[in-house]
Amino acid sequence: MSNSDLSSEYGHSLDKKSEGQEVPGAPTCRRRVKTSFLKGVSYISGDMEVFGKWMEKQFFLLQLLDWVLRGAAQAMFVNNPLSGLIIFGGLILQNYWWALNGFIGTLFANISALILQQNRGAIAAGLYGYNGILVGMLMAVFSTAGDWYWWLLLPNIFMSMMCPVVSSALASINSRWDLPVFTLPFNILVCVHMVATGHYNHYFPQVLIQPPSELPNISWADIDVAKLFRSVPVGIGQVYGCDNPWTGGMFIISLFISSPITCIHAVVGSAVGMVSGLALAAPFENIYNGIWGYNSALACVAVGGMFYALTWQVHLLAITCAFFSAYLGSAIANIMSRFGLPACTWPFCLSTLIFLLLTTGTKRIFKLPLAEVTYPEKNLAFYWKLKKQEKEQQKAIQEEIQRNEKELLRIELQRMEQDKNKDSQVEVKVPEEESQVCEDGGNGRNGLTEVILAK
Amino acid sequence: MSNSDLSSEYGHSLDKKSEGQEVPGAPTCRRRVKTSFLKGVSYISGDMEVFGKWMEKQFFLLQLLDWVLRGAAQAMFVNNPLSGLIIFGGLILQNYWWALNGFIGTLFANISALILQQNRGAIAAGLYGYNGILVGMLMAVFSTAGDWYWWLLLPNIFMSMMCPVVSSALASINSRWDLPVFTLPFNILVCVHMVATGHYNHYFPQVLIQPPSELPNISWADIDVAKLFRSVPVGIGQVYGCDNPWTGGMFIISLFISSPITCIHAVVGSAVGMVSGLALAAPFENIYNGIWGYNSALACVAVGGMFYALTWQVHLLAITCAFFSAYLGSAIANIMSRFGLPACTWPFCLSTLIFLLLTTGTKRIFKLPLAEVTYPEKNLAFYWKLKKQEKEQQKAIQEEIQRNEKELLRIELQRMEQDKNKDSQVEVKVPEEESQVCEDGGNGRNGLTEVILAK
Amino acid sequence: MSNSDLSSEYGHSLDKKSEGQEVPGAPTCRRRVKTSFLKGVSYISGDMEVFGKWMEKQFFLLQLLDWVLRGAAQAMFVNNPLSGLIIFGGLILQNYWWALNGFIGTLFANISALILQQNRGAIAAGLYGYNGILVGMLMAVFSTAGDWYWWLLLPNIFMSMMCPVVSSALASINSRWDLPVFTLPFNILVCVHMVATGHYNHYFPQVLIQPPSELPNISWADIDVAKLFRSVPVGIGQVYGCDNPWTGGMFIISLFISSPITCIHAVVGSAVGMVSGLALAAPFENIYNGIWGYNSALACVAVGGMFYALTWQVHLLAITCAFFSAYLGSAIANIMSRFGLPACTWPFCLSTLIFLLLTTGTKRIFKLPLAEVTYPEKNLAFYWKLKKQEKEQQKAIQEEIQRNEKELLRIELQRMEQDKNKDSQVEVKVPEEESQVCEDGGNGRNGLTEVILAK
Repeated sequence: MSNSDLSSEYGHSLDKKSEGQEVPGAPTCRRRVKTSFLKGVSYISGDMEVFGKWMEKQFFLLQLLDWVLRGAAQAMFVNNPLSGLIIFGGLILQNYWWALNGFIGTLFANISALILQQNRGAIAAGLYGYNGILVGMLMAVFSTAGDWYWWLLLPNIFMSMMCPVVSSALASINSRWDLPVFTLPFNILVCVHMVATGHYNHYFPQVLIQPPSELPNISWADIDVAKLFRSVPVGIGQVYGCDNPWTGGMFIISLFISSPITCIHAVVGSAVGMVSGLALAAPFENIYNGIWGYNSALACVAVGGMFYALTWQVHLLAITCAFFSAYLGSAIANIMSRFGLPACTWPFCLSTLIFLLLTTGTKRIFKLPLAEVTYPEKNLAFYWKLKKQEKEQQKAIQEEIQRNEKELLRIELQRMEQDKNKDSQVEVKVPEEESQVCEDGGNGRNGLTEVILAK
Repeated sequence: MSNSDLSSEYGHSLDKKSEGQEVPGAPTCRRRVKTSFLKGVSYISGDMEVFGKWMEKQFFLLQLLDWVLRGAAQAMFVNNPLSGLIIFGGLILQNYWWALNGFIGTLFANISALILQQNRGAIAAGLYGYNGILVGMLMAVFSTAGDWYWWLLLPNIFMSMMCPVVSSALASINSRWDLPVFTLPFNILVCVHMVATGHYNHYFPQVLIQPPSELPNISWADIDVAKLFRSVPVGIGQVYGCDNPWTGGMFIISLFISSPITCIHAVVGSAVGMVSGLALAAPFENIYNGIWGYNSALACVAVGGMFYALTWQVHLLAITCAFFSAYLGSAIANIMSRFGLPACTWPFCLSTLIFLLLTTGTKRIFKLPLAEVTYPEKNLAFYWKLKKQEKEQQKAIQEEIQRNEKELLRIELQRMEQDKNKDSQVEVKVPEEESQVCEDGGNGRNGLTEVILAK
Repeated sequence: MSNSDLSSEYGHSLDKKSEGQEVPGAPTCRRRVKTSFLKGVSYISGDMEVFGKWMEKQFFLLQLLDWVLRGAAQAMFVNNPLSGLIIFGGLILQNYWWALNGFIGTLFANISALILQQNRGAIAAGLYGYNGILVGMLMAVFSTAGDWYWWLLLPNIFMSMMCPVVSSALASINSRWDLPVFTLPFNILVCVHMVATGHYNHYFPQVLIQPPSELPNISWADIDVAKLFRSVPVGIGQVYGCDNPWTGGMFIISLFISSPITCIHAVVGSAVGMVSGLALAAPFENIYNGIWGYNSALACVAVGGMFYALTWQVHLLAITCAFFSAYLGSAIANIMSRFGLPACTWPFCLSTLIFLLLTTGTKRIFKLPLAEVTYPEKNLAFYWKLKKQEKEQQKAIQEEIQRNEKELLRIELQRMEQDKNKDSQVEVKVPEEESQVCEDGGNGRNGLTEVILAK
């Protein structure tokens, strides 16, 4: 979801602009501080492109660590090692064993991608790690063998190493529609592991998940508003299977560092999911646990600025997608529970794919080419640049048309004058031929005009 | 499934023909009556194209009503507002509340399509309404909250407005194989709503559907032949979830108005479904209720003349598809019942997609390009025109070949004569050169012939 | 999976080579025997291409028998009538009634393909038969109506005749990614039949399959090593639903006749599946029954040499795929059991599709174009030839570059000399023009070089 060639171009132009604003007027102390602050921010925000470039010349193990950190953050569409570091912090806060499994998952997913000689740029952007961290984390989360059951690392490593295989396969299909694979490889592989072993397994038992078989006991009097509000960060934490609100809070911070737009949409999405849960009469316990939030949060981020350029229309579309994602989430959770499976992030993947496949007649809903997707702020810059170019082109065409019309008028005038001459000198044949030549010339220009317009 | 540019062309040529037949001979009263009758029929049958054109200049709300009516009929592949009106009549006969939900579903599906700036021609053909009416109807049918439970309109409106989104997304995929989306959006959205809420829900409880868990009590002595025959119109009514045979009868009439071929195939398909039910030992109650009929009826209509040009081979294919659809229907119903879901029209969609993806070596099974699909009678006219053109082309090519062969013979003769001259005038060099030029000319023509044939 | 045009080319070149080796040195008796032995082997091994060509001129019923036999073997990717004969022998050894159903399935699948005018070359390669034999066999295997229940032939014939329809439809989709349809039509159709009728059906009752609901009783002390080893051939037999180890053994022989590489991979795959079963704590009874082997065996054969050219990397990939297939097999079996369905060969199909969609940067994992796929040995010859051609091309390009560089140097020298002349004869203009011409010539050649390189 990153394109380093392009990002450099924009990154620099943005830098120049912010520096350029300082040129007129005397450089006061405050301004200098502001400049260096902005420069500092540009180093750690976005996709930390300068850092990424610097990393390319470093020791291999350090590079691998960078990829692992970026991979950890890419589960939330963030290509930023600092965000990844904070996310790992959040995971450790939640549970040491889970964090370890997540780390091993990311590591082996990257190793497998290297063995299979996948695209180095995609690996460096963390695009081969995020399924790994989710596979590792969630396999630990749903295991009932208890923490520090070391045998779990075996299927963890195998499934993590399968991530790039499944990613590459799905990309072969999705790329036909210029769509990303999202967390589909994670969904497939974790579901395969969980249902292959199941609750009744000697080596790798899973938590027992069963479909609802009676009316849940819901009374609005029992509602706990504080827990409802807390469900928003918990919902974001549930992307990684974490139910600790502080962990969710750290994730929000990690998103804000890289991209405020992403951060806002994640929070809005999680809130939309919570409201959907209330609207569909879900048991309060599920809503408090953030089960209704994570799919909506992811869907809202993906549609709201990540794969579409952010406009008001797109913002509304993102919120609609978050609602639909929550609805679909409830549906998929009920279906999967028949097989003893959790919903994973299937609802997010499917709803977002539907909204990305949507084609509309309006230009205000602009889907970025997959190769140009970086992060919402840069995507927006790309969209604006494109619009500006288009306007200029249209202006140039209009000017061309005007020029041609003037030329035609001039020729017409010339011809009329020559016609007059012709009328006065009936006996002379030569000028008529000239006039014909001139007419041809006029037609020739006319044809040229048409060709230009046809372009 | 309509193409207004083309339809006008055909519509007029058909009109001309029917008028043309009257010219020779004295215009008796009977003939005049027949002519005006045919003209009148042409106004209300088919896709009522003249009416559609007239509508384009009317007040917006009237247009919207036209689209809603066409949308109601498009669930049976009929692009005709009069059929839509009769269908709404049938729905009202069945149940006021269901009809209201269906109307609201169609309305909001169209509004959503307008907001999302979908193709205006497709909206005008009712292609954005038919999923809406089915979503609205079936959500009401499967709700156990009772009639006039007004809260149901909320998910109804949301899901109806999601129809164009899902339609557009699926069309992005299906268009790669030149396939329509059928009622897949309806299937997806109704299943999402039903399984998201389920039987045990406080706000939107669904009917309890459970898989069969014991041998049904079937004895051929108990069979009721009258009910069996009645199951044919009931099966057609079940397309909209209606089990009233009179409603089904009205649907049959509405089909006949627009396209007799469609009507016949719907009846045949429903009967085939009923027979399949008997062959697979289904409980008689299900067969009487038309559960076995609606998928087969739709599949038979779709294959028999709608997306293939109707020939005897295609007619047999349509009946095979109806059988397979009934078989698949039983399979899908059993699978879906595990999740408390009805089969909806998944069996029709899947079986018809399979039969439309079929590629055969025979020219008698001709799949129409999706953009040319209108209604079976016009499709047939398109197919015949294409065949005629092809024949004429082949004839032209054959004639060209013959002409070229004659030309070659002539050149050969010339050359032989010149060779004779050459032999008699050995010392003269000039004629030989001329002969070479002539030879080149011959080759040139030969090459030209090959180019023409290669076309 | 066969291409007769190409195979002839290679077949002959291989023949020539083996004959060519004999030319130097006196033809001793032993050599002659070896030659005729190799020639004899070439007649019955591989895809028996000479026999296939001879068959084309025979009586239609004999041809049909050839297609049926090839179809029987194609379920294991073998296009060889002798293998098909041995496989039918194995089936008869297992159960007369099953073998009859399999034969009828293959026969009617071929008849249906002929009616639908499918590609004659594909029919002759048995590609329309293998789904038929599996449908026929497995419908008999999973029926609880007992052997010689003649009514079963009705759905058997219907479903067999549906095979080419579903195959053709799936091929329309899969061909976009240059993928085969594998046994997907069989999986779809058998599952449709089984779940449409189910265990509780008066006419076509199916075996009762239920999901595991308690911890299986596994203790390593009870393990029977002999049965474990026997599970390898049983696993291969389970491709056709046979649990007789002798039948499995005959299948192994039939594979060896056509292609030793296929045979080895089938055995390795079945063993890998058995090991996976032990690793995932499966009940021993399932492992002994070969339930864990057949998907892995098929996946290992498909990846290991059939659709990829066999290299060490591909061999490792095939083993990975076999592991993943077993894992997926357990998952799918658990899911399908909720619907009373067996896993069929879904795990093989899905895992192999994933591994065939994989794109890697390494040239050592070479996926053959689908049209060139024959059998592993010939695929390997194709791959080697391609590599050789590539090397030669690269060499030619390098030589071209060198030659051009030399030419450029020569021109440069000439120019320098002319420049000298120009300097010495300032008043003469003509040499300069010549030099310009020469320069142009140089540029012309340069341009030519670029064009050549661009190719």
